[in-house]
Amino acid sequence: MTYDLWYWDGIPGRGEFVRLALEAAGIAYRDRAREPGGDEALARDMKARDVHPPFAPPYLVTSEGMTIGQTANILLFLGERHGLAPQDPAGRLWVHQIQLTIADLVAEAHDVHHPIANSLYYEDQKKEAARRARHFREERIPKFMGWFERILVHEGLWLAGGDRWTYADLSLFQLIDGLRFAFPRRMATLAGQYPKVMRLHERVAALPELQAYLNSDRRLPYGDGIFRHYPELDAA
Amino acid sequence: MTYDLWYWDGIPGRGEFVRLALEAAGIAYRDRAREPGGDEALARDMKARDVHPPFAPPYLVTSEGMTIGQTANILLFLGERHGLAPQDPAGRLWVHQIQLTIADLVAEAHDVHHPIANSLYYEDQKKEAARRARHFREERIPKFMGWFERILVHEGLWLAGGDRWTYADLSLFQLIDGLRFAFPRRMATLAGQYPKVMRLHERVAALPELQAYLNSDRRLPYGDGIFRHYPELDAA
Repeated sequence: MTYDLWYWDGIPGRGEFVRLALEAAGIAYRDRAREPGGDEALARDMKARDVHPPFAPPYLVTSEGMTIGQTANILLFLGERHGLAPQDPAGRLWVHQIQLTIADLVAEAHDVHHPIANSLYYEDQKKEAARRARHFREERIPKFMGWFERILVHEGLWLAGGDRWTYADLSLFQLIDGLRFAFPRRMATLAGQYPKVMRLHERVAALPELQAYLNSDRRLPYGDGIFRHYPELDAA
Repeated sequence: MTYDLWYWDGIPGRGEFVRLALEAAGIAYRDRAREPGGDEALARDMKARDVHPPFAPPYLVTSEGMTIGQTANILLFLGERHGLAPQDPAGRLWVHQIQLTIADLVAEAHDVHHPIANSLYYEDQKKEAARRARHFREERIPKFMGWFERILVHEGLWLAGGDRWTYADLSLFQLIDGLRFAFPRRMATLAGQYPKVMRLHERVAALPELQAYLNSDRRLPYGDGIFRHYPELDAA
């Protein structure tokens, strides 16, 4: 059983949340749009999918022919099929709830540098971005970080308790990693206030099952993706 | 079995997507924050939930004591437990995928009038809102509407095919309803291009199982919620 993952080449973006789960669980997959001619192949594939068409990448195609779109939905599927989340109803929904909340902050992190329109360059919305960035740094990051910290105070090492990571822990690692890239000064200021979140980030970064991936060229640099480092949008 | 739904009183907001599913399926629930003293009770309840705390309302509490947050996650749960979505894996994930895509457009519709920060008044971000609104009307609404229409061309009357609504159909009704309230001129222009979407909206509005609710005072006016009508943000 091999999965086809479809996501734009060149940035980690939302595809990275899926990649981390596949890699950490040792699940075989092809990263289709990163193969030669991948961009055109992705555009063609999107158009041709009449059954359950994805609105946007990433999407996953299974060997039985299921097409699954929306990052959190893909992780819900992988979590159930490959045991990357608790199996009981409450634990399963809890991990998904955390994932959806992570997705909300990912969308907000993107809109910091694109507050007006995705179709415009950053340079065409810099003034608005500067205004939005201040609120994001001072209100939004702390609000979400406080929630993650509160969870870990109760649950322990991992977001769903127990002694093993779930897909939401991998995603929180990626979120913190991206925020540290995009807002290094702000995240340095905040780190001391959310020690459990920061230790979770370190713990995932050190997972033996992720070392080969994190040190490979399959792990892409952030570049001009969702998490972007514009020094003028950061502050302590 | 009665559920407790917790969501701010005064606007339909994201709580409405949950309410529509509960009402259409005839599921008993208490709308806790709309009872006397509800605002304070909600704030108190949020603070006290140490196990699986919701990041924000809406959240649902079951009689077994599960707390479920994130609108789409609540609907996933209700869909499975009360048969409001297909039971097979592909159909179940498909309906959830649609719901998550609806949630994306709901968030964008909110950010049209709050492109800088939720903590600021609209009046303090009017200029940015006007810029964002043009892109939302001209690029984003058509992109999402086109996707919903494409689905219905393939599936028929309902988003997951078959002869019965799922929770995603109820949510698409609410999305279209809210967009028509907020952007009446734009939606009038677009209606003819997405006839199947518009007929789905009418079909849900006419469901016998929703008539009592839609004609009751439990159905709240849009007011200053996610969908807001500022004439200056609308255009044909």
